[in-house]
Amino acid sequence: MNPFPAIFVPDDLSEVLSERAWLAALLETERALVNAQALAGVVSAAAATAVADACDPEAYDAAEVARAGRAAGNPVEPLVRMLRERVGPEHADAVHRGATSQDILDSAAMVVARNALRLIAAELDGVADACASLASAHRRSVMAARTLLQQAVPTTFGYKAAGWLVGIVDATRLLRDADDRLPAQLGGAAGTLAALGAEGPEVLRLYAVELDLREPVVPWHAIRAPTAALGGALAAAAAACAKIAGDVILLAQTEIGEVAERDAGRSSTMPHKRNPISAVLAVACERHARANAAILLESVTAEHERAAGAWHAEWHALQTALAAAGGAAAATRRSLESLEVDADRMRANIASETLSEAARFGIDARTPDDYLGAVDVLIDRALEHRP
Amino acid sequence: MNPFPAIFVPDDLSEVLSERAWLAALLETERALVNAQALAGVVSAAAATAVADACDPEAYDAAEVARAGRAAGNPVEPLVRMLRERVGPEHADAVHRGATSQDILDSAAMVVARNALRLIAAELDGVADACASLASAHRRSVMAARTLLQQAVPTTFGYKAAGWLVGIVDATRLLRDADDRLPAQLGGAAGTLAALGAEGPEVLRLYAVELDLREPVVPWHAIRAPTAALGGALAAAAAACAKIAGDVILLAQTEIGEVAERDAGRSSTMPHKRNPISAVLAVACERHARANAAILLESVTAEHERAAGAWHAEWHALQTALAAAGGAAAATRRSLESLEVDADRMRANIASETLSEAARFGIDARTPDDYLGAVDVLIDRALEHRP
Amino acid sequence: MNPFPAIFVPDDLSEVLSERAWLAALLETERALVNAQALAGVVSAAAATAVADACDPEAYDAAEVARAGRAAGNPVEPLVRMLRERVGPEHADAVHRGATSQDILDSAAMVVARNALRLIAAELDGVADACASLASAHRRSVMAARTLLQQAVPTTFGYKAAGWLVGIVDATRLLRDADDRLPAQLGGAAGTLAALGAEGPEVLRLYAVELDLREPVVPWHAIRAPTAALGGALAAAAAACAKIAGDVILLAQTEIGEVAERDAGRSSTMPHKRNPISAVLAVACERHARANAAILLESVTAEHERAAGAWHAEWHALQTALAAAGGAAAATRRSLESLEVDADRMRANIASETLSEAARFGIDARTPDDYLGAVDVLIDRALEHRP
Amino acid sequence: MNPFPAIFVPDDLSEVLSERAWLAALLETERALVNAQALAGVVSAAAATAVADACDPEAYDAAEVARAGRAAGNPVEPLVRMLRERVGPEHADAVHRGATSQDILDSAAMVVARNALRLIAAELDGVADACASLASAHRRSVMAARTLLQQAVPTTFGYKAAGWLVGIVDATRLLRDADDRLPAQLGGAAGTLAALGAEGPEVLRLYAVELDLREPVVPWHAIRAPTAALGGALAAAAAACAKIAGDVILLAQTEIGEVAERDAGRSSTMPHKRNPISAVLAVACERHARANAAILLESVTAEHERAAGAWHAEWHALQTALAAAGGAAAATRRSLESLEVDADRMRANIASETLSEAARFGIDARTPDDYLGAVDVLIDRALEHRP
Repeated sequence: MNPFPAIFVPDDLSEVLSERAWLAALLETERALVNAQALAGVVSAAAATAVADACDPEAYDAAEVARAGRAAGNPVEPLVRMLRERVGPEHADAVHRGATSQDILDSAAMVVARNALRLIAAELDGVADACASLASAHRRSVMAARTLLQQAVPTTFGYKAAGWLVGIVDATRLLRDADDRLPAQLGGAAGTLAALGAEGPEVLRLYAVELDLREPVVPWHAIRAPTAALGGALAAAAAACAKIAGDVILLAQTEIGEVAERDAGRSSTMPHKRNPISAVLAVACERHARANAAILLESVTAEHERAAGAWHAEWHALQTALAAAGGAAAATRRSLESLEVDADRMRANIASETLSEAARFGIDARTPDDYLGAVDVLIDRALEHRP
Repeated sequence: MNPFPAIFVPDDLSEVLSERAWLAALLETERALVNAQALAGVVSAAAATAVADACDPEAYDAAEVARAGRAAGNPVEPLVRMLRERVGPEHADAVHRGATSQDILDSAAMVVARNALRLIAAELDGVADACASLASAHRRSVMAARTLLQQAVPTTFGYKAAGWLVGIVDATRLLRDADDRLPAQLGGAAGTLAALGAEGPEVLRLYAVELDLREPVVPWHAIRAPTAALGGALAAAAAACAKIAGDVILLAQTEIGEVAERDAGRSSTMPHKRNPISAVLAVACERHARANAAILLESVTAEHERAAGAWHAEWHALQTALAAAGGAAAATRRSLESLEVDADRMRANIASETLSEAARFGIDARTPDDYLGAVDVLIDRALEHRP
Repeated sequence: MNPFPAIFVPDDLSEVLSERAWLAALLETERALVNAQALAGVVSAAAATAVADACDPEAYDAAEVARAGRAAGNPVEPLVRMLRERVGPEHADAVHRGATSQDILDSAAMVVARNALRLIAAELDGVADACASLASAHRRSVMAARTLLQQAVPTTFGYKAAGWLVGIVDATRLLRDADDRLPAQLGGAAGTLAALGAEGPEVLRLYAVELDLREPVVPWHAIRAPTAALGGALAAAAAACAKIAGDVILLAQTEIGEVAERDAGRSSTMPHKRNPISAVLAVACERHARANAAILLESVTAEHERAAGAWHAEWHALQTALAAAGGAAAATRRSLESLEVDADRMRANIASETLSEAARFGIDARTPDDYLGAVDVLIDRALEHRP
Repeated sequence: MNPFPAIFVPDDLSEVLSERAWLAALLETERALVNAQALAGVVSAAAATAVADACDPEAYDAAEVARAGRAAGNPVEPLVRMLRERVGPEHADAVHRGATSQDILDSAAMVVARNALRLIAAELDGVADACASLASAHRRSVMAARTLLQQAVPTTFGYKAAGWLVGIVDATRLLRDADDRLPAQLGGAAGTLAALGAEGPEVLRLYAVELDLREPVVPWHAIRAPTAALGGALAAAAAACAKIAGDVILLAQTEIGEVAERDAGRSSTMPHKRNPISAVLAVACERHARANAAILLESVTAEHERAAGAWHAEWHALQTALAAAGGAAAATRRSLESLEVDADRMRANIASETLSEAARFGIDARTPDDYLGAVDVLIDRALEHRP
C-alpha cells in the first residue's frame, strides 16, 4: 500500500516491522503464554512443548494469516485456529488458553515495538554522535545566530550542534524510558484473568518474564497509556530530528551555503543542484510520526473493556509511527554524517550590523574570546549530558 | 509495511493504489507529456511514438523503481533514466522534456487519486443506497431518539437513516467536486514553463486534456490547495461513514440490541458474541483518514517554488487517506448491507418516561401519527436530496 | 483565558466574536423562532411581539449568562429562563417553543460565523489585492526560483505573487461557498420537529429566512458536515495565508534581504533587527486554525441524535478557528501591504550557476524575454482568476 | 474570545491562567533575573532592590501590556519599557539585563504552568480518590464486561474503577515528572549568554533557583522538548479522564442505567433527562487538550535560534492545553464524586448468554467467588499503585 518511498525507512527497521516479523512476534507470544502456564503448573510440560514446537514462523504464511484476519477484524483468531490444527487434538486446548486476541496482539505489538525501538535508538545515538562531533569540531566556528530568521548576534556552529545534541539526548532518554515500560498484555476475555483461575496473576508474571516485557499493574486492554506514551516519545524523537534537519535545510540554502550534504540528491532537471535530500526526508517523516502519535493518543479514550475502533486504529498507527520515527532518525543521521561544513562561509556571512550589534554588547565577533567562555561551558554541559 | 489488516481496504481499491498502479500512472503521465508536445508541434510524431511505446508498465519493475528512487528522494528520477535508456539515443531528448520530477509525480498522484475516487464514490453510493433503503423500510419503525446517550423523545429508525443519508450525500458531493477539480501538474523546474518556451501554456492545456485532468490556472508545485482539499473531502467522507458506524455500534450493544450485523465478527474467546466488526473497522479507518488529511493540510505551507519536506510527506499521506476513506466507506456499506433491524426491540426499548415526555408534547409514541407527519416530510426531503 | 496576544485578531473580528455578539446572536435566534411561528400562524402576533421585544441584548448580562450556563452545560437553558421571566407569564409559552438548546446555539453559531466570515473574507480580499498589485508591479522583477530551498532557475517576483494570489482566490472561494451553505438549525428535542406538529417544516423554512441562513435538508444536530466543512475552509484559508507568510519570512532573511516589512517588529534586545512580525504571527495563527479545524472534523462522529461531548467541543473550536483564520488573513495582509521589495537585490542574488543552468535551457536570465512569455501569460491567468 | 463555557475550567485554574497571573509571572521573572545578577555580583544590590520594587503587578495594567505587545509580537518588549520607566534612569540598565524577550516569556510560562499543574494534579488526585473509593466499595458489584460494546463475561464495577485508577495514577505521575522538569529560560539574544559575560552560566543557575525551576543544560529557545513534553503529559492526563468520562456516559445510558450523575444537567426541553453533563464536558475538554498538545509538538521543529511562528503559536496552545486538561480533570472528578451506582441494575443487566459464556469458563457469575480471586488481587495492585 506504500508504493514509493515517501517515508524513508532503513532496511533493518523495515525488516523488524515486516509481516514476517509480526507473525513471529504473535507466535512468540503464544509460546510465552503456554510456557508461563507450564511453569505455573496449569498446563502440562508435554502440552507446552507441543505448542511451542508449533510456534514456528516458517510453518505459516503471513499473507494468508493477514487475509484470513479480515473476517474477525484481527489476525489472531485465524492464527489460533491454524496453530491448534498444527498442534493436534491432544494438546489443542493448551493453545491460547485463557487469552483473548487482544492479549496476543498487544503483546506482539510490544515485542515488535521493542525490536524497532532498539534500532531507532541506535539511529538516534548515531545522530547524537554526529552532533557531538560537530559540537567539538566547530566550537569556535563563528557564525550568525538567527532569530525569526534574522541575524541576531554571533554564535558558533559548535554551540548550535550542542543544542541539537541536547534535544536528541533528551528525546532518546524518553524513548528508552518508554521502551523500559512496554508491558505484556494478558487479561483474558474481559481483562479479569478469570479463565486462568487463581493462578492468573502468577501466569501474568511469568508470561511477562518470558517475553522480557514489563508486568503491568492490571491488564491494559482499555487503559492505553502505554501505547499513547510510546507514540508521544516517537513523535518527540522525530521532532528533535526534524529540528536539526530543518536547520540543515536553512543553512544549505544557496544564498547561505554554510553546510551541504555530501551525497546530495540529484534533480531530474537540474543536475547542478545540491538538494539536502536526507534532511528533507527527515522533515517528511516527522509529519507522519506526529500524525500517527495523535491517533495513538486519541485511542486512550477506549470504550469499556475493549474499544470499538480505537484499538483497531492503533496497529497501523503504531507501525507507521515506528517506521516514521526511525526514518526521521536515520535520515537525520545520514544528513549529519555527510555534512560538509564551510566555516569560512559562516564567518563571511555575518552581516556587518550583526557585528556592530555584538559590539554593542562588548563582543568582537572576529576575535570572540570574550563571549566564547560561556559558549564553551554550555557546549561542555551538552557533551556531558549524554548518558 | 502494513502487515496486518488494521485498515480494511477493499481489493479493488488496493489494486488502484498498488505499486503497479503508481508505476502505470507515472508512465501514463510521461506519455501524455510527449503526446501533448507532439500535438503542439514541439516534438516530432516519431519521437512521441517512440516514447509512448516505451511507456509500457510491463517493461519496468515497480519495486526496482521504488528502490532506486531513494537516492533522489523520489521515484521519477530513476524512472526517467530507465525510460530514456529504453527509448534509445535518437529520441531520448523527447522524454520528460520540459518537466521536473514533481510534474510527473503530482500528475500521477492525481491519476491514481481519480481512479481511487471512483471506487470510493461507488462505495459511498452503496452506503447511500443502504441508508435510503433503511429510511424507506423503517419510516414508521418507532424508536427512542437519544441525546447525550439519554433517551429523549421518540423518533423512527427510518428518520435516523435519513439523517445518515444526508451526511453521505453531502460528503459524496464534496468528494465528486474534489474529483472534478483534480489538476494536471506541469511547470518545469520552477513552475515557469520556461523550458517549453512560448508553447508552454498550450502544452499544459493539451497535457491536461490527455490526462483528463483539469488545466490549472498556474502550476501548483507549491500552491497545494488541490491536495489539501482532496484530503479534507476524504476525511469528511470517512467521518460521515464513521457517524453511521458509531450509531450502529451503539444500537448493537447487548442491552439495546436494536440492530446487528448479520456476518458479525467472530471472537477468539467468545463465539457467542456478535461484534459489529464492519462498523468497528469503519471507525478505525476514519481516524487514519483524518490524521492523513491533517498532513495534507499542513503541507499547504510549502516553501517557495517547491517544499523541502512537506511535499515528500504528501505522497504517503494521500495514499493512506485514499485507502482509509475507501476502507471506511466499504466497511460501512458492508455493515449496513448486512444489518438486521429489530423493530420490535426498538419499540420495546422506549422507556416509559420517554413516552410520557413525548405525551407532554402531545405525542403518542405508540400510535405516533401526530408527529410522523413531520418525519415523513423530512425523510422524503432526504431521499430527494440524492443526486 | 487568553492573556497575551498569541493569536493576532483584528479588533472588528474580536468584536463579532465577543460574548456580547454571541448573546446577541442567541437572542436574534429566539426572535427568529417566534417570528417564524407567528408567520406560520402557530403563535399569536401579540406573543411574537412580546418575545421579540424581550430579545434585547442590552437587557441581559452576557457574563452572567455564561456563568449560569455551566450547570446545564450550555448557555441557552439559563437564557431561556431569563427570557421567559422577562416576557412574563402571558406569553412565556411562546418563548423557545418547539426548540431545544442546540437549535438556538447552532443557529447562533452560524450567525456569528457568518458575521465573522464577512470580515475574514474582506481580509482575504485585501491579501488578494496586495498579491495582485505585487504580481503586476513585479512582472519582470527577475529573481531566483527556489526548490527545496536551493536556487533552481530564474523566475520573477510577480509570478511568485501570482501563485500566492491563486491560492488566496481559491481559498476565499471555498470560504464563501461555506458561508453560503451555513444552515439554520431547528429540530426540537430529537430533530424530528415533533413539538411543532405538522407545521414543523414550514416553521423551519420561515425561520431560516428570518435568520438569512440556508434551510437544511433535515435538522443537523448530529450530522455535522456544515461545521466540519466550515472548519476545513477556515484552515485552508489560513494555510493559503501562511504559505505567503512563510515565503515572506524566507525572503526577508538577512542573507537574502529581498523583502522587508516596513513596520517590522522591534526586538527588546536588538533594535537593528527587522523582524517580519506580521508574517510570523500569520504562521502562528495558521497552526491554531488547523488544530481547531481538526476538532470540528472529529466532531462529525457524533452519537445518535446529539453528541455527548463532540458538540460541546465544537463551540470553542469554531470560535478559535474563526479568530485564527481571521488573524492569519489580517496579519498576512498587513505584511504584504507593508512589504518593501528590493528588486535589485533579487536580481543580484541569482547565483551564477543558476544563470548558467537557465542558459542550459536557452534562457538568459539577465534579459529574460525568451521565458517571460510564459510567465506573463500565467500572471494574466492568475489576475483573471479573481472573481 | 471565549464567550461561553465550551470548556469547563474551574475558577481557581482560571485565576492562575488569567492576564493578571501572566503579568505577575512576567514581573516575577524580571525580578528573579536582577536578583540572580546581584547574587552573582554583576549588578549592585541597590539596583536589584530598585528593580524588584518596581516588579509589582499592581502597578501595571495587564490589558494595556497585552495591547502594546502586538506591535512587537510579544508583551515583554512594552513591559520592559514600562518597567524601566518606573525604575528610573539610575537603575534602568539593570532591568532585563542580558535577557531577550523569550527568556522572560518562556520562564513566565513555566511559572504559570507550574502553578496550573499543581491545581490540575490536585484535581487528578481527586479523580484518583474517587476511583479508589469506587474500586473498594464495588469490589464485588458484579457487572457485565463489555468489549466492542458487546457483553463479554462478568467483571465487577470495582475492578473497572481500578483500571480507571491505574490510568489516572500513571498520567498524574507523568504530569508531575513534567512539572519537575520545567526549566528556567535564560540565554540572551541568541542563547549564548554572551551579554552576561563569563558569569552567564552562574547567573543562569541562580536565576533558576530564584524561580524554583530546573536549570536547563543549555538555553532552550529553539530546543522545545520541555513544552512539547508538557503538552503531551497534559493531553495524556486529559485522555485518562476522558476514558473514565466516556465509560460513565455509556453506563448512564437510559437502557443501561448502571450509573448516574447526581447533579445531572438540566435540559431546556426535557426536564426528566439526567444528562451526565460533567462527563460530557470532560470529553469535550480532552479534545482541546489533545489539539493544543499537537501544536506544542509541532513547535519542536523551530528554526535556528528562535522560531518564526512556532514559538508564537505556543503561548495560546500551552494556555489552552492547561485549561482544557484541568477542565477535563475537574469535570471527571465532579462526575465521579456525584456518581450514583446502581449495583442491582448492574447485576440484572448481565445477559443470560453472558452468564452461560462465563459458565463455559467455569465461572458462576451469580456467586462469583471462583473468579473474584484474581480480580481482588488486581484491585489491590491498582490501589497500591497510588503514590
